Amino acid sequence: MSSKTPILVDEARPSTFEVDAINERGETVATPIAGEHALTLYLDKRELLTLMTLGAAPAHLALGYLRNQRILRSIDDIASVQVDWETGSVAVTSRSLAEHGTAIWDAAGREALDERLERRTVTTGCGQGTVFGDLMDELDRIVLPGGARLTEETLYEVMDRVRRHESIYKVAGAVHGCALCSNAGPERGDILRFVEDVGRHNAVDAIAGWMWLEGVDGGDKIFYTTGRLTSEMVIKCAQMGIPFLLSRSGLTQMGWDIARRVGITMIGRCQGKHYLLFTGRERFVRLPTTAFA
Amino acid sequence: MSSKTPILVDEARPSTFEVDAINERGETVATPIAGEHALTLYLDKRELLTLMTLGAAPAHLALGYLRNQRILRSIDDIASVQVDWETGSVAVTSRSLAEHGTAIWDAAGREALDERLERRTVTTGCGQGTVFGDLMDELDRIVLPGGARLTEETLYEVMDRVRRHESIYKVAGAVHGCALCSNAGPERGDILRFVEDVGRHNAVDAIAGWMWLEGVDGGDKIFYTTGRLTSEMVIKCAQMGIPFLLSRSGLTQMGWDIARRVGITMIGRCQGKHYLLFTGRERFVRLPTTAFA
Repeated sequence: MSSKTPILVDEARPSTFEVDAINERGETVATPIAGEHALTLYLDKRELLTLMTLGAAPAHLALGYLRNQRILRSIDDIASVQVDWETGSVAVTSRSLAEHGTAIWDAAGREALDERLERRTVTTGCGQGTVFGDLMDELDRIVLPGGARLTEETLYEVMDRVRRHESIYKVAGAVHGCALCSNAGPERGDILRFVEDVGRHNAVDAIAGWMWLEGVDGGDKIFYTTGRLTSEMVIKCAQMGIPFLLSRSGLTQMGWDIARRVGITMIGRCQGKHYLLFTGRERFVRLPTTAFA
Repeated sequence: MSSKTPILVDEARPSTFEVDAINERGETVATPIAGEHALTLYLDKRELLTLMTLGAAPAHLALGYLRNQRILRSIDDIASVQVDWETGSVAVTSRSLAEHGTAIWDAAGREALDERLERRTVTTGCGQGTVFGDLMDELDRIVLPGGARLTEETLYEVMDRVRRHESIYKVAGAVHGCALCSNAGPERGDILRFVEDVGRHNAVDAIAGWMWLEGVDGGDKIFYTTGRLTSEMVIKCAQMGIPFLLSRSGLTQMGWDIARRVGITMIGRCQGKHYLLFTGRERFVRLPTTAFA
C-alpha cells in the first residue's frame, strides 16, 4: 500500500428502520423506511456543510464531495478521513495540517481555496453566478475517450445486473442508487460498486470518492443511476472520467447540453429492453439481432 | 393592495424542449425533455447561491428559498423581487436598501443575519452542525392545528385532482411536482397552486414563496408532493404551517421523526386507493364505506 493512502475510519449506519403505518383497509402494516442521518463535514476543523445521508458510505461520500466540488484536487492532499456517528461528523484532515500544522487553505499556493470555501454558494448546481465560468472552463478541459464503445448487449447486461442487485430501494423505497460498472473484458457489465443514498447526488459522490481513493480510472467504465440526468449528474459523471451515463429516468435540457459539450454518451429511460440514446451516439453499437424466440 | 406588497418582476422559462433520441429499434424519436436553467439569487446585491430550476416560478422560488432558509422573516422586509433571464438572476431588494440605502444585514437588529449568510453551510438539510440546534428550536415553536381533520374522501379527491392535472411530468418526465390543496369548505380537495421543478425542494420553495407573498395560511390546507418525504420536505411543510403532508413516494426515518415531533399528519405511498398513514393519525378520518360496486 502506498504510504500516501489516507487513513480511513469509516462506519455505516443501519440502512432501514421499521415503523408502523395504517393502510387503506385500516390494517397496521410494519413498514421498512430508509435511514437518514445528518453528517457534518469538517475540513481541517472547519465546518463546511451538513449532508443528509443514508449513511452507507460516509467516508467515501466526504471524499467524493470534496472532489466533485473541486475543493481538493489530489488524493495526496489528504491524511485522514474519520467518521464519528456519535457526533454525526466526518473530519477530513489534510497532510498540510497533519504533517506541518498548517490548515490547507493557509498552505503555500492555496490562496484560492480559502476564497472558494467562503464563496461556496453553489448548492444544487451551478450557473451564471461566479462559480459557473470556472466550472465550464474546467469541463472543457475534460477529455473523455472518444474510442470507447458500449454495445447494446452490455447495456442490457448492466440493466439486468442492476435489476437483480439487492437493494434498500426494494425493501424501503425512498432512496436513489448508483452503480459503477465495468466496460472491459470478461467482466463487462459487472457492477464494481453500488451505492444508495437518500439523495442521488450523495450516491454519486460516494462512488466518486471511492474511485478517487482507490485510483480507479473511469474511461473503461459505465455509470448507471436511478436518478434523473440533470446538469449536476452529467457534470459529476464527466468529472469521474466516465464516457457512458445511463439512467432509468429522464433528463433535463441542461443535462443534455452539457452531455453534448463534454462528449458523454447519455442513455435515458432505460427499462427492460427499452432505452433512448440521446448524445454521444457514435460510441453506441447496436448489434444485429439473431432470431432467437 | 397593501403598499407593503413587494414589487415582482417575474418571467417563466419555456418548460419543455424537444430533442431527438434513438430507441431500441433504431428509430429516431422526437423526445420532450424538461428545461433546466441556472438562476442566481442575489439579496441586496450579494450573491447567495445558484439554483437549477425548471424556471416556472422563479420569483416565488426566490422568496420561498429566503423564507425556508430563514434568511428573512417577514414579507414586509422585501421591496422587490426582479427576475432577469438575460443574466440568469433574481435580485431581491430589501426595504432597508430601497428606502434607506442600507443593506439588510447592516440594518439595526440584523447582526445575526450577516453571520447566518456567511455560515450558510446547510445545503441538503441540517444536522448536528451549528445550524441544527437553531432549526430544531424553531421547529419546536411551530404549532400546527391539532383539530384539523382530513377525511379519506378528501385524500382521494386530492389524489384524483393531481392525477388529472396537466403537467410537464406527463410530457417530459424528469420533474417533481407539488400541489397546495384546500381542506376547507366546498372547494375541499381543489388544487390552489401547482408547481413543478427539476428539484422537489425548489417546487416546495416556490409554493412557500407564493403563500408568503399572498399571506396564505397553511392551517386549512393539504400539501402533496411527488417527491420523497425526507427531513427537509417535512421541515418545509411545517414551516408553511400545513398539517397534512401527502406523497406518492416513501419516507425516511428522519422525515418520520420530525413529522412526529412537529405534529404533522404524514401519508405516504399514495397511489390510487392505496396509502400508508404514518404519523398524526388522530387527524385522519376513515369514513365507513357504503357498498357501491
